[in-house]
Amino acid sequence: MRLVLTSDNRIGVQREDGIVDVSAAFADIPYRMSADRMPRVLAVLRERRARVEELAASGEPMRVAGLQAPVPRPPKLIAAFGNYREGTDRERQAQDMFLESPDSVIGPGGTVILPPHPVTIFHHEAELALVVGARAKNLPADERALEALAGYTCAIDVSGRGLGRMGPSRIGKSFDTFTPLGPAIVTTDEVPDPQSLRVTLSVNGELRQDYSTSDMEYSVVEILAFISSYMTLVPGDVIMCGTNHQGLGALQDGDHVVMTIERIGTLEVTVRDSLKREWPRGIDQEIAARARGAARS
Amino acid sequence: MRLVLTSDNRIGVQREDGIVDVSAAFADIPYRMSADRMPRVLAVLRERRARVEELAASGEPMRVAGLQAPVPRPPKLIAAFGNYREGTDRERQAQDMFLESPDSVIGPGGTVILPPHPVTIFHHEAELALVVGARAKNLPADERALEALAGYTCAIDVSGRGLGRMGPSRIGKSFDTFTPLGPAIVTTDEVPDPQSLRVTLSVNGELRQDYSTSDMEYSVVEILAFISSYMTLVPGDVIMCGTNHQGLGALQDGDHVVMTIERIGTLEVTVRDSLKREWPRGIDQEIAARARGAARS
Repeated sequence: MRLVLTSDNRIGVQREDGIVDVSAAFADIPYRMSADRMPRVLAVLRERRARVEELAASGEPMRVAGLQAPVPRPPKLIAAFGNYREGTDRERQAQDMFLESPDSVIGPGGTVILPPHPVTIFHHEAELALVVGARAKNLPADERALEALAGYTCAIDVSGRGLGRMGPSRIGKSFDTFTPLGPAIVTTDEVPDPQSLRVTLSVNGELRQDYSTSDMEYSVVEILAFISSYMTLVPGDVIMCGTNHQGLGALQDGDHVVMTIERIGTLEVTVRDSLKREWPRGIDQEIAARARGAARS
Repeated sequence: MRLVLTSDNRIGVQREDGIVDVSAAFADIPYRMSADRMPRVLAVLRERRARVEELAASGEPMRVAGLQAPVPRPPKLIAAFGNYREGTDRERQAQDMFLESPDSVIGPGGTVILPPHPVTIFHHEAELALVVGARAKNLPADERALEALAGYTCAIDVSGRGLGRMGPSRIGKSFDTFTPLGPAIVTTDEVPDPQSLRVTLSVNGELRQDYSTSDMEYSVVEILAFISSYMTLVPGDVIMCGTNHQGLGALQDGDHVVMTIERIGTLEVTVRDSLKREWPRGIDQEIAARARGAARS
């Protein structure tokens, strides 16, 4: 099942012929509290699944002006540090994760606004995102961990480099509008193996990122086990699984970005920069080489 | 005014003779949505202040079994990186901030649970915390920034060291129970100068941290200007202003921790470690020296 949130706050299921309104299955969860609503919907999704499917099967597709992110305001937005082998056969680095601002999320068709800060570059990072569907702590690093998920979606972890203190800083990923998310939450039953998904990202029609989730350093269930050993996961939390740095490139004013994850969906956004800064187009080979050569640990 | 949240979910004002129930001023904001409630209360606090003061002045103190954190679940929990001169006259380092898990918050009288992870040490970090009271972006670095605040409170940023990847990792600060917060939100009008507050922290009666907020590298208004240039602040967000590392020490099983900020209040917690690990007691001189010698940038 593919769950979406329309720009006029209806909860929909995406069928091949369009989006069907299934809001009636969640009538007790108020529309107005937008920050809180989708987390609460996800918390009851499993138990109401039959009703949602019934509505989705029997309804007619509706006219939809646009979509919001399927979780417009996650309780926590969590990101994996690095987490790809970058095509090498190196030993795994120590596992690490960090938090980003949950107020940085935008939806499909949204606009990434580049701030005036003195970055060295703004990069796109296409990532598989996990959407949590149940409260969870200390998950095991096996299939059972997936039961804590509502599903998967696409995320672009836009990253302003060179801000804060050198090295450790991740603040340049938390600007407002820097986390495009969506279009749909694809429930876990639709994805037989999250470790064999092709992820692509193009800018103005030029292919940049093109990698498989099989290259992950720590798998989806290992990510879930790690982060839930630190903090309680709650419905609506979004966990970005990291990116392969071999196809990163600059984002700049006017760019049209299209990201696709096989079986999950396609997410498109545009970029605006009132300063009209320019960087070389194409793949950033310097960061790609640096990521391939990252120190073993 | 000193605003508290009791363990049975009443909103109170702390007077010299006790805590008076002022929940009636927020009757339209439902009790049940605990994650969302205090942010919504703080969002309307200024406009309802007269009513709250009237209730606080006319009411009788109530029996209070205990307090929760005044914001049990901040929308964002933000921390300043370093941010003290450590008693040196060095030039300021680049300003930086990061996010911690908002699900790590516990209240006064709570218990910090040390996880079994292979840390090098668990440290206490006593910090002045800012509680946001209004949606805000791009605040100026002057007095006007304080208008975005509901007030101040005490925070202990408990820090497990040596986890994740060396250097940049902050994940060891995001364990559940690692952010004791409270006891009250002290409104900004009660604090004439947030840059001249004495902060102390004792463990089992032994004084460890004892510093003044006058030693901050970036002041409260500079912190607000910096972080709001990245992300929209929303009511209930909590921003920890960093700590002076000259009095850090280990936390271990059975410790009783008392933190006080002049004019703001006293926050007490205890510590439990099922593994009963032991570290030397007293001040950690190694981290103190490292913090004094931190590289200029």
